[in-house]
Amino acid sequence: MTEVKIYDTTLRDGSQREGISFSVTDKLKIVKELDKLGIHYIEGGFAGSNPKDMEFFGRVKKIKLKNSKIVGFGSTRRKNIRAEDDPSLRALIDSRVRAACIVGKCWHVHVENALRTTREENISMVSESIAFLKENGLEVLFDAEHFFDGYKGDPEYAIDVLQAAQDAGADYLVLCDTTGGALPHEVKEIIESIKLKIDAPLGIHAHNDSECAVANSIVAVQAGVAQVQGTINGYGERCGNANLCSIIPALQLKLGVEVIQPEQLKLLTEASHLVSEIANLSPYPQQAYVGQSAFAHKAGLHTSAIEREDSSYAHINPSLVGNVQRVVISELAGKSTIILKAQELGIDLSDEPHRVTDILNRVKGLEHVGYHFEAADASFEILLRKSLGIHPTFFKLERFRVTMEKREDGRVATEATIKLQVSGRTVIETAEGNGPINALDGALRKAIGSVYPALGDIELTDFKVRVLDEKKGTGAVTRVLIESGDGKKTWGTIGVSENIIEASWHALVDSVEYGLMHKRAHEENGLNGMNGE
Amino acid sequence: MTEVKIYDTTLRDGSQREGISFSVTDKLKIVKELDKLGIHYIEGGFAGSNPKDMEFFGRVKKIKLKNSKIVGFGSTRRKNIRAEDDPSLRALIDSRVRAACIVGKCWHVHVENALRTTREENISMVSESIAFLKENGLEVLFDAEHFFDGYKGDPEYAIDVLQAAQDAGADYLVLCDTTGGALPHEVKEIIESIKLKIDAPLGIHAHNDSECAVANSIVAVQAGVAQVQGTINGYGERCGNANLCSIIPALQLKLGVEVIQPEQLKLLTEASHLVSEIANLSPYPQQAYVGQSAFAHKAGLHTSAIEREDSSYAHINPSLVGNVQRVVISELAGKSTIILKAQELGIDLSDEPHRVTDILNRVKGLEHVGYHFEAADASFEILLRKSLGIHPTFFKLERFRVTMEKREDGRVATEATIKLQVSGRTVIETAEGNGPINALDGALRKAIGSVYPALGDIELTDFKVRVLDEKKGTGAVTRVLIESGDGKKTWGTIGVSENIIEASWHALVDSVEYGLMHKRAHEENGLNGMNGE
Repeated sequence: MTEVKIYDTTLRDGSQREGISFSVTDKLKIVKELDKLGIHYIEGGFAGSNPKDMEFFGRVKKIKLKNSKIVGFGSTRRKNIRAEDDPSLRALIDSRVRAACIVGKCWHVHVENALRTTREENISMVSESIAFLKENGLEVLFDAEHFFDGYKGDPEYAIDVLQAAQDAGADYLVLCDTTGGALPHEVKEIIESIKLKIDAPLGIHAHNDSECAVANSIVAVQAGVAQVQGTINGYGERCGNANLCSIIPALQLKLGVEVIQPEQLKLLTEASHLVSEIANLSPYPQQAYVGQSAFAHKAGLHTSAIEREDSSYAHINPSLVGNVQRVVISELAGKSTIILKAQELGIDLSDEPHRVTDILNRVKGLEHVGYHFEAADASFEILLRKSLGIHPTFFKLERFRVTMEKREDGRVATEATIKLQVSGRTVIETAEGNGPINALDGALRKAIGSVYPALGDIELTDFKVRVLDEKKGTGAVTRVLIESGDGKKTWGTIGVSENIIEASWHALVDSVEYGLMHKRAHEENGLNGMNGE
Repeated sequence: MTEVKIYDTTLRDGSQREGISFSVTDKLKIVKELDKLGIHYIEGGFAGSNPKDMEFFGRVKKIKLKNSKIVGFGSTRRKNIRAEDDPSLRALIDSRVRAACIVGKCWHVHVENALRTTREENISMVSESIAFLKENGLEVLFDAEHFFDGYKGDPEYAIDVLQAAQDAGADYLVLCDTTGGALPHEVKEIIESIKLKIDAPLGIHAHNDSECAVANSIVAVQAGVAQVQGTINGYGERCGNANLCSIIPALQLKLGVEVIQPEQLKLLTEASHLVSEIANLSPYPQQAYVGQSAFAHKAGLHTSAIEREDSSYAHINPSLVGNVQRVVISELAGKSTIILKAQELGIDLSDEPHRVTDILNRVKGLEHVGYHFEAADASFEILLRKSLGIHPTFFKLERFRVTMEKREDGRVATEATIKLQVSGRTVIETAEGNGPINALDGALRKAIGSVYPALGDIELTDFKVRVLDEKKGTGAVTRVLIESGDGKKTWGTIGVSENIIEASWHALVDSVEYGLMHKRAHEENGLNGMNGE
């Protein structure tokens, strides 16, 4: 199999996903991560389409990249003008990228109905645009838009366009399944027939509208393409682009095509999570290879099998992609799950069947009222420690009150008053906040902060709310998940109540206590179960 | 191509997904929906494994199904006992299902390490279990667990197991990719080689750990399998099972294999959303075919192309699977998007460029502070109507106050007081609630309910909160999405504020106003843009 290059278009096609809007700083952070990961080409954006992308091209040049080449995206010249007069091609040159990817049409239907020009003029547009960029010293990739639909509609014209691009000196001809409608057998057959007529290196650019983008990309490599275009986490318009987080490990671990270094592959999970964090989207837990659930097991059958033999129910060793195997706490869990989970925390319960039963009953009772420990490892650890009588008491709440007022002038005032016992004293403190949980968090920190200065390092990084019985609307039970961090590690806690503020309070207390406990353990260098990240 | 049957295992394998726990009533609702959809086999659960599943088998018999056959799941007999003495096989017979699917091993590694028995005894287990169920009049499907791994490890033994199952009278031999590690070319080659030796109808049961489950299932059908096992929305352990919502339309619309009726296929989107609602999971917007974003377009390039020609950027006509094309309102949207969206609401803005610019600026301003109209069509419609000066005023808020107290006895009290003008009068009302938003909703209803009795039909069905700048934790901007319904249609509204209660208030007001406006329009039978569901 030939060498295969990876081309990332997270910053352009990926940002078309509903909900994504990257700032220039976001894009630069992603570039650095992709470079670390060993991605060969990074498409930065549309050169010349807006000031944000031009600022990006200006700033990215100052970053020293080890592995990646930045690519500017554009399209073939407009109809009936000279390439050198086309503002979009000029912008590509002005952006001073070393490589450009330009999109052009090869489906006769689009040439006639969307471009409203002749087949011949379209071919000149492709050919002259590529030649112009090559003359200006750029590496040129040609994105053959709607290639598979075009080929199915009129194979000769589609090949004529590729031929013209090849003759004009394009370095790669990238076959795009723009509508994402192709199935693997079509991709295979069409690429094999193209290879009989075209010598230039081919690429594949798949979309996931048939949920086959990963398979189509893999099949394309098997059929001989030399470049795969996709995005981190498969982000993209509609159903997304081909997911590089699934394609890279398949090529590398299953087909023996080494696209990046094994050490770089271990950064895949981190890169996936970082990009989703920057995109402000929750990581998709079920994502292949890199998802939090990708190597998680909850069925009783499987967890006991896992105990016996690690490789039984995993298709790869998760550490190869920087992920970990995880035993999930859930109502389907049996005693062996509790024992395994305690073991992860460094607590041996294998000789304590009564305690295990007791913990399992507590977990089931809490899950019955809406708790869900799968995303709240820290709350589970606290539950476990409380059940075992080894959870320290940091403070004892007496009462709190939260008031929020929207006044006639439209201004909003929120305050929380909290009364509690800490370190032998009774303390009452009030704090304002820009929301009820923020005010409560502020009052708690005021009340216990002088006793626990380590609290200063602990911050809440995410806050999620879900209503459990959707039928009841605002009267339903509310589940709050809080994610916290101290700059070194992150942890998740949970609270459930009919009242969103009370639910948040429970999650907040677990978050603070877990953070303080592990800070203390770190200082004492003794507590089991600490895993810095 | 032979006839292909669809086998749904949402109720068993699907419920292994983290976060899913179906009640018996949930399962029965799903059965009815799958029957309407025309699914041939519905696996109900593990017969005999727990009282919940046995209750299900008891109750499902009372439902008259038109298309589906209920299947009980179990495994081959334990080692070294007679089939008729095996409690799990007995339970299958006792559950009085007409068809049973039993799982057995065909990977020698598992036979030796997990079952801890001999290869010969494993074959007897498979063979005698199938024969016993057949003698008892059941249709029998044999799930060949870890088939692809087993075949790769020792093809002869894997085929010996299938041969034994065939000889014992199994109606289908289902090849399971239990770890989800197989790639399409392997599935194709292995099935083709099996078909040379085995005559019994084959099935495929794929998992999505390589993000290839849909492709693997499609390839398997092309290689000649007669049954596809999967789940609605691809729910399942780890990365999920093969997604029937993507497989069925591919077979039907792209490969010409008619598995269900065209009228049934139109229920696919509804079935997908219903199952996710019952599973209490948000529908995945990017899901192929049935997702809310599957036929959504936001890029300027594409939306103007859509105006010109509908089929340009969609691989199928969305109505074939019961989905719709959608133009997305976002910061990338141009004026044509606003015009198209207004058109969806029955408002013609094509000759009003100034108003369009004005609306676009408002949308961009709001998106800048965290609004996001993609999931809040009703709030966008209200924005549009306000911009055009055609939004009616239902009431005018003066002020409100929300208090929540956690008392020393641990009890929680929440109340809201609201003062507003409605129908010429000033009203002040207080309501208690089990949470702040519930109390506020209650006070609002008390204050305006007598003027707008239609409010009684409007209820909030879902409530979602997301923190926008995750770095700031509880001090960040909060985005609240509320989904509401009146039994006929549903709508989404949004509120953004640093304060979760104020953000909820904005979403709540939009929800109530939108509901009242459309109720009124419905009664007057005149307002444009109403789409009952």
